[in-house]
Amino acid sequence: MREKEFISIIKDTLKSDYIGDDCAYLKDLGIVVSQDSLVEDVHFSLKYMTPYQLGYKSVAVNISDICASGAEPKYLTIALSLPKSVDEGFVKSFYEGAKALGVEIVGGDMTGADKVMVSVCAIGSTRDRKISSRCNAKVGYKVVVAGLHGLSVTGLKLLSEGKNEPKKFIKAHLTPTPQVEFCTHIGKNIKSNYAMMDTSDGLMDAFSTIANDSGVLLRIDFDKIPQDKDVDKDLVLFGGEDYGIVAVVPKDFECGGAVVGEVVEGLGVELNLDGQEVHYSKKDVEEKIFNHF
Amino acid sequence: MREKEFISIIKDTLKSDYIGDDCAYLKDLGIVVSQDSLVEDVHFSLKYMTPYQLGYKSVAVNISDICASGAEPKYLTIALSLPKSVDEGFVKSFYEGAKALGVEIVGGDMTGADKVMVSVCAIGSTRDRKISSRCNAKVGYKVVVAGLHGLSVTGLKLLSEGKNEPKKFIKAHLTPTPQVEFCTHIGKNIKSNYAMMDTSDGLMDAFSTIANDSGVLLRIDFDKIPQDKDVDKDLVLFGGEDYGIVAVVPKDFECGGAVVGEVVEGLGVELNLDGQEVHYSKKDVEEKIFNHF
Repeated sequence: MREKEFISIIKDTLKSDYIGDDCAYLKDLGIVVSQDSLVEDVHFSLKYMTPYQLGYKSVAVNISDICASGAEPKYLTIALSLPKSVDEGFVKSFYEGAKALGVEIVGGDMTGADKVMVSVCAIGSTRDRKISSRCNAKVGYKVVVAGLHGLSVTGLKLLSEGKNEPKKFIKAHLTPTPQVEFCTHIGKNIKSNYAMMDTSDGLMDAFSTIANDSGVLLRIDFDKIPQDKDVDKDLVLFGGEDYGIVAVVPKDFECGGAVVGEVVEGLGVELNLDGQEVHYSKKDVEEKIFNHF
Repeated sequence: MREKEFISIIKDTLKSDYIGDDCAYLKDLGIVVSQDSLVEDVHFSLKYMTPYQLGYKSVAVNISDICASGAEPKYLTIALSLPKSVDEGFVKSFYEGAKALGVEIVGGDMTGADKVMVSVCAIGSTRDRKISSRCNAKVGYKVVVAGLHGLSVTGLKLLSEGKNEPKKFIKAHLTPTPQVEFCTHIGKNIKSNYAMMDTSDGLMDAFSTIANDSGVLLRIDFDKIPQDKDVDKDLVLFGGEDYGIVAVVPKDFECGGAVVGEVVEGLGVELNLDGQEVHYSKKDVEEKIFNHF
């Protein structure tokens, strides 16, 4: 919650429209840019994460942001801060993982620090792409989900208990797969304005952010959300770091994924779960996320 | 020295031509990009640096890199990691300082950490600019220096002794001024290929890097280097963080600054100091910097 308060201070100080989105769309340069950091013992632990996995995930989370904007991920810079205990093998493995997703790494820097810290800046090209905005959900649009949810946080729980099985959960947490193909199809082919964001902070966070930023109500049918049978329902909705995608697009636009609901007049998210319709305001969702994690 | 070894591992792992320069020149997008990080108690101490100064300097060092490429600094993203002890006032002051240089901040992120850490990514436009390269110094070119050197490290020494005077040294260290005007003139007006870099790691480091990457000898006359009379000669040559500029351009190109030498056949730097001509190989300069700081 403190980060949200700080971001509103930053917005006030900078008086910039860009701050707060996952990607900044720099129209004059034809690019989008995003920056995300991972800090040891805050976002990950080297007790259960290898340098390769850290390199992979640091890059994956930024590629996910670029893809969710509808742009094409093109280049990365990586700032790496390393304690003295880290050796050459660590650096080599980290970059092996970082380049595994196929986006070119063109720079960055390396510094000393007490803990391992990674900050990745990703640049995407908007050429021949239509760029999304969280404010673009419109009444009559459909709500589409790509990817499975709740697996990553289930994996994190297992890892923190010293377990390394089932593999599907462990892999979802350590080496998530950004939804490159799904997003590329939309960015390249859609003609109308549309909303899209990744589910880095959970599926409900994405539903709620799009709904509230667009001033509409998203009516979601829980049973239509693609699910892994072994994942708790609450984690499907509120678990983060799966890097799936929520896209809100015109009904007649074909894009794959699962249609989980529609946009109607109103504000917030209305969830149909176990025969009950529950309304979630922006505050409800924020509190639920805060209390859970 | 460990960072240099790590960078050669990264180069080997990535097989990319971009790594190692201060800025990556992304021709297809018409931009340059640089990323630099500052870590508490490695690059700065909050004992003598205010949040405003930290915001200012984090941005200044990145703007300096963009300017040295010949491009126009356009946008910044800032990743800020903060310990729990930091309050709203810190965040506000930091961003006041960060925006003081007039380049728009468009994104970034904020995370928790044990120490304050800042990683800034700067994007420059290459539109109507000719971009420099360290490999472009040619026999017959002149060597030009902009800015004063050795003041920043003198200031750091004073601050670490608990002193806050003379102001010129303190200011040079805490709020250095990037050479925007000097670089803009060159980037906008020069027709030939040229070499330019900032002196973040010291004046001799810039001379030596350009000389060795271009395969030429830079013959430098120490007395022609603009100097503050109160700064030790060794610090003029080897002190870092002044964010001056070394430009190596055709003799007939007018660009202001001080002409301190010329490019001749050979390799490395030949320094005329106190009537003596001393040759510095790449290794000599690296060892001297390593032993000093």
